[in-house]
Parts: sequence; C-alpha cells; structure tokens
Amino acid sequence: MTFDDKLGLQVALEEAKKGFEEGGVPIGSCLLTEDGKILGRGHNLRVQKSSATLHGETSCLETAGRLPASVYKKCTLYTTLSPCPMCSGAALLFKIPRVVMGENDTFVGAEDWLEKSGVEVVNAHNDECKELMQRFIKEKPEVWNEDIGE
Amino acid sequence: MTFDDKLGLQVALEEAKKGFEEGGVPIGSCLLTEDGKILGRGHNLRVQKSSATLHGETSCLETAGRLPASVYKKCTLYTTLSPCPMCSGAALLFKIPRVVMGENDTFVGAEDWLEKSGVEVVNAHNDECKELMQRFIKEKPEVWNEDIGE
Ligand SMILES: [Ca+2]
Ligand SMILES: [Ca+2]
Ligand SMILES: [Zn+2]
Ligand SMILES: [Zn+2]
Repeated sequence: MTFDDKLGLQVALEEAKKGFEEGGVPIGSCLLTEDGKILGRGHNLRVQKSSATLHGETSCLETAGRLPASVYKKCTLYTTLSPCPMCSGAALLFKIPRVVMGENDTFVGAEDWLEKSGVEVVNAHNDECKELMQRFIKEKPEVWNEDIGE
Repeated sequence: MTFDDKLGLQVALEEAKKGFEEGGVPIGSCLLTEDGKILGRGHNLRVQKSSATLHGETSCLETAGRLPASVYKKCTLYTTLSPCPMCSGAALLFKIPRVVMGENDTFVGAEDWLEKSGVEVVNAHNDECKELMQRFIKEKPEVWNEDIGE
C-alpha cells in the first residue's frame, strides 16, 4: 500500500495545533485511505471536554464514525505522537495495518505491541510535532501527566 | 486490595441490560474503589451514538471523567465481557491494577496482554452476561462484528 504520508501527518499536525490553541493537549490524528481520502481527523480533548478517553487517535476514530472492517484494513492512522496503549489497542481492534507517528522522543507508547501484532509502524521524526509537545509539557506538566496516567 | 466484586459486576450488568434495551451492544462496565464507591459506569454506545470508540469500558471511564493517576491505581474495572485491545489498553494507560470480566466465552480480548503487564485479571464466569451477549449476537450479528472489527 502506498500512502500520502506528507498529507496524513500534515492533517494530524493541524489538529494538534488546534488542540494547542484551545489550551489542550496538542496531539492530533488523521485516518487516511490509500487514495488520499481523509476519513477522520481529531485531536486530544482531555481539557476541552473533560474527557479521559478522547486522545488524538480515538477522537479521530470517533469523527470517522462507524466503519466496516474492510475500510479500516485499507487505512493508515497518523498521529503526532507515539500512540499510548489505549490508542494502539484501538488500531489493533480495527485491524488498521499501518500507523505513522510524528515522533516518539517525548513519549513511547505501545509501539512494540503494534509491531509484534504485525502492524507497520513508521516514525516520521518530525521536529514540529516534537516542539509543540515540548512547549506544552513545559507550560502544563500536570495536564500531560494526567493524560498518560502518571 | 479487597473489592466488592458482586457489586461491581452487578452494576456492569445493569449497564449492559440498559444497552440491550436501547437496541445497542449489551456490554456494560463499572469503575469501583476498594471502599465501594462507584466512580464511573457506562455501556457500549456504538449504535446509540454511532460511536466507534465508546465501548462499555471507555464509556465507563468517560463518565468517571478526569481522574488523577492515584485514584485509578486503587480501582477495579468491571466489564461484562473480556476487554478488547482498546479497552485493555485503556486499563494499562491508567494503570488500573485489576480487571474483572463477566465472561470470555463469547469473545476473548487482550487478557494475555493485561496479565503479562501485571494486571490482575479475574473471570467471573457469569451466565447472565453470557446469555445477554449470545441473544444479541443471534439478533444482530452484523453490529457485533462491526464492533470488534470483523
Ligand atoms: Ca527520534
Ligand atoms: Ca468459561
Ligand atoms: Zn492514546
Ligand atoms: Zn473495548
């Protein structure tokens, strides 16, 4: 499968920036098909909606709505940060075959579990994703810790 | 830690029954403290809210709202059915030390991953949980398959 990773990551980053502007955790996500159709996009809503489970990726999957298994199987899930265990589990539940992350210097989620389960995991080493998270964590360390159960 | 498993599972089952009556996937969940306080309760909302990620457990964690790590660490998460990868990942994210399921005859989620990660996993082998799921799957097999990405 060939995906437009530049587009997918760009949309995820736009979502992360929206989250930052709203005062929230700046992690964004995008669900993209091979032929470049954006099925879902979203960002972490912990602060905005007092939500414990609306991370970037789950928020993206929520906007994508109810989809049949056949659709997920042809998608890549983009996320600006290494996916946490819950969001990695969501990718596995829906058998999404490919996950692209902006970076994993800030946080390492359940990448190993994804790879062991046969998911293709790509790290884009994107500086903008990383700088946005570093800025947020410096400003609101307690919100970030709460988001990752620390 | 000693928990009132009878109470926790009863609340989860009440939620599952609510879901069934609403025409939805009958899986319910409850987040309970050691001293018997119900912090959250919820049921699968795929049908009711066209939601891809509001399973019983995530729905329960949503109603519990934003909690500090110190609270989750003293809780048991009850669910009427073996938790899928996403919901197992949610338990791991928040370092919930104990998960009690109603049954795993209908579906086996990511129990192994929970156990390997040090979570105490208990199967209550509850017939009522199982019968409710069996009835639902017989009536709406396509909704159930969609819910587990099949
Ligand atoms: Ca790096
Ligand atoms: Ca059994
Ligand atoms: Zn996550
Ligand atoms: Zn689940």
